[in-house]
Amino acid sequence: MRLRVTYHLACSSRLAAERARDIAFEQTVELPADAVPPEVAARVAGRVESVEAIGRGRSRAVISFDPGAACGDLPQLLNLLFGNISLKTGILIAGLEWPADLLAALSGPRLGIAGLRELTSVRGRPLLCTALKPLGLSALHLARLAYGFARAGIDLIKDDHSLADQTTAPFRERVERCQEAVARANGETGGNALYFPNVTSVPSAMSERAGAARRAGCRGVVVNALPAGLGAVGAIAATGLAIMSHPSLAGAFFHSDHGIAPEVLLGDLFRVAGSDAVIYPNVGGRFTFPEATCAAINARLRGPLGPVPPSFPVPAGGIDAARVPHWIERYGADTIFLIGGSLYAQPDPATAAERLVAAMRRHTHG
Amino acid sequence: MRLRVTYHLACSSRLAAERARDIAFEQTVELPADAVPPEVAARVAGRVESVEAIGRGRSRAVISFDPGAACGDLPQLLNLLFGNISLKTGILIAGLEWPADLLAALSGPRLGIAGLRELTSVRGRPLLCTALKPLGLSALHLARLAYGFARAGIDLIKDDHSLADQTTAPFRERVERCQEAVARANGETGGNALYFPNVTSVPSAMSERAGAARRAGCRGVVVNALPAGLGAVGAIAATGLAIMSHPSLAGAFFHSDHGIAPEVLLGDLFRVAGSDAVIYPNVGGRFTFPEATCAAINARLRGPLGPVPPSFPVPAGGIDAARVPHWIERYGADTIFLIGGSLYAQPDPATAAERLVAAMRRHTHG
Repeated sequence: MRLRVTYHLACSSRLAAERARDIAFEQTVELPADAVPPEVAARVAGRVESVEAIGRGRSRAVISFDPGAACGDLPQLLNLLFGNISLKTGILIAGLEWPADLLAALSGPRLGIAGLRELTSVRGRPLLCTALKPLGLSALHLARLAYGFARAGIDLIKDDHSLADQTTAPFRERVERCQEAVARANGETGGNALYFPNVTSVPSAMSERAGAARRAGCRGVVVNALPAGLGAVGAIAATGLAIMSHPSLAGAFFHSDHGIAPEVLLGDLFRVAGSDAVIYPNVGGRFTFPEATCAAINARLRGPLGPVPPSFPVPAGGIDAARVPHWIERYGADTIFLIGGSLYAQPDPATAAERLVAAMRRHTHG
Repeated sequence: MRLRVTYHLACSSRLAAERARDIAFEQTVELPADAVPPEVAARVAGRVESVEAIGRGRSRAVISFDPGAACGDLPQLLNLLFGNISLKTGILIAGLEWPADLLAALSGPRLGIAGLRELTSVRGRPLLCTALKPLGLSALHLARLAYGFARAGIDLIKDDHSLADQTTAPFRERVERCQEAVARANGETGGNALYFPNVTSVPSAMSERAGAARRAGCRGVVVNALPAGLGAVGAIAATGLAIMSHPSLAGAFFHSDHGIAPEVLLGDLFRVAGSDAVIYPNVGGRFTFPEATCAAINARLRGPLGPVPPSFPVPAGGIDAARVPHWIERYGADTIFLIGGSLYAQPDPATAAERLVAAMRRHTHG
């Protein structure tokens, strides 16, 4: 079976067949058809499966690729799907159909929804997550926040994705203090809150930080998947840590007529890369996704995908704590709600977190 | 000194001041101003230095950041510059002014223009480069091409950026055969052609491949910098191999009103990441850069940048071999011309390469 990619092309169907053929060659043999030995073209070049008009100067082309061209390797897969044609215009990846052997080679999340539920001992309800912020606070101060959130019953307490190794809260000190604070709170409440530090960095530092996080007792981490390189997600996942992927930079791909559709990038690709949970900007927050896009991301993260376990969607980006019951209603139990700013807008974030936890419990047990 | 970023905003100057302030907070403390302790905001939040109208509903804002927020770390620098705001609209990074200590921390290319001239023994003229392609040929076939190009006098012979570890030409076999072929040609001609394999992959495989390339005798490699993660460039550069960075996926950032300007991404950022040479799509080829953008990329790669050595611009993407004298005239000696398809369009690429080398020599010695 082949990897089938649906491209939306900003051109009429009259021109679309030739554009589709250009894409099929550009992304593989990178030569015009007449400069490629025919037997090589037949084996290796993309194959235009269909082209049709979808209205208003837009067409849909399905191009299939030999999955062997991707080598089971995320960076090469991205290159195959959109590498060179990113430099052209009017080409949007709107859908992917995955062959089983490519999915098996990419492996996907090690834990997924089931594994994260196991780690947090949370069944039958969504998870609540918040972020330690802002950048600029000391490790001690962040650890105090972490303690308060864990005491309040927040399930996942993550570093803000901009906390790296700044001198205000150096990575090692921050991880040790925050992990200790959360463990202490768990000891007091009998709870099972987890702390996920952000380990994003260059490859060597990232692997050192993941090791330090594991040794400190953390069970998962945050990765800014595109700045790090999507292949870095799998590298960290292989160590056994849970991965919450952050969509930093992803918006560069989200143009309506050129790029990769949000549900393909954050849904399919972040999932197969090994993310156990994927953060995305929820409708109605500080960012701009329509509700249908959010629903599509949820569906791509959770839906059947061969041997690849489902991942948790993590709607975020300005969710109001007071609206969480509404979002639980819409998105269902297999969701992690990331509530950050709305807690920090209150005089005491930990007290606001307690109210959030209580509201969620009333709603899911009521 | 602070890191100064020039953003173009798709809004009138009346709204621009508030948008600029939002960006300054979003990219650092990731909270609204009233939820951040004032002493933290003063130290850590971006600072809006200026806002001015630039016509037709567009404004320019200069925002400065504490360079410490980037931790001398490329992934975190990308995150600081454009991470979350990528998910908004109408925000273009049009320029950067670098503080010396951040440049020193990022270190940039190890070899740069001078080092690559040393490796190739080419002085006073541009370098000629071609690609081994297409994907689908055997390692033996690619090695024959490499031999022919080296015999013809091509200075740099690189893997096509889509050659990864496909079964048709597995990485190890390809590198050994191609490197041997180029070394053999050099032995016959007294020349000094170099072969650069593509090592792009997930972090562990990438570092293994770089090691295998070095052991085979290669002096440099190709990296698809964005698929791999921009931090991977520095990781490979640290091993002493020269890096030719490929712009795969970069086009996602090149929208006129949202993203990162090509000269900033491929010029500044690819250079400080450690690229000794940066491939970009030349004007008039298969892609879409205007000539001014090409000139700006050349200038950012070669210009003074504190302690960071200059990198070679590598115009590519459909340069006609017959037009190389014209481009030498325009771009000057400190350029690597990457001529691929134009050679493969001829019955014998090696003979076409000989003609290209002869034309370049007539032009630069004449």
